[in-house]
Amino acid sequence: MPTQDHMKQTLRTYIDAINAGDAAAISGLYAEDAVVEDPVGNPPMTGRAAIEEFYTNAIAAGTKIALDGPIRGSYGDRAAMAFTVEVSGMRIRGIDVMTFDDDGKITQMQAHWGPDDIET
Amino acid sequence: MPTQDHMKQTLRTYIDAINAGDAAAISGLYAEDAVVEDPVGNPPMTGRAAIEEFYTNAIAAGTKIALDGPIRGSYGDRAAMAFTVEVSGMRIRGIDVMTFDDDGKITQMQAHWGPDDIET
Repeated sequence: MPTQDHMKQTLRTYIDAINAGDAAAISGLYAEDAVVEDPVGNPPMTGRAAIEEFYTNAIAAGTKIALDGPIRGSYGDRAAMAFTVEVSGMRIRGIDVMTFDDDGKITQMQAHWGPDDIET
Repeated sequence: MPTQDHMKQTLRTYIDAINAGDAAAISGLYAEDAVVEDPVGNPPMTGRAAIEEFYTNAIAAGTKIALDGPIRGSYGDRAAMAFTVEVSGMRIRGIDVMTFDDDGKITQMQAHWGPDDIET
């Protein structure tokens, strides 16, 4: 199981890579067969190639992300963070939960935000 | 699927019931066979009786909880919130994710906080 420090650092790296516009750095945080649900309730994206495409599009749209508070760990393989995304004139308030494998890669990302969490 | 308003109101009711010391009101928000992982990585508690006992003990210990920001919904059956708990001289920063059934009851609660998220 990855350490708390590893999981939290991965989430910080994730944020920095989005803001730096580096989709390859983001997809490299994921396991090859990872699953991303962003947002939860939409069809999931599976595999590093699909995931990198998702972030490439998000970055092309100008996505910037900021933490709303400290990243949380767990007594297991998960870490979570509350954040605000600014993209395309919208402000989206979300909470991501990421699950890690023993190699420290993200196997699952679930983004919790809904229609009422978007301000235009 | 429950509405965004229903899920978010349930999380607000949950917070109010903890702060009011009303364990029965909290357990009433859960489905009969609900599963609570608090924190994620510890053995889960299953069923409303075990869940009510958990909250009874938390309330007896003086647990108070405050939101760290707006409750998030999803495009599915889940809502999430970042919070700070004060209990027994500790401050715990956590993120709860709750899954709902079609009757609007919570079927799963997963609390994300780890050893590094506790201040004494």
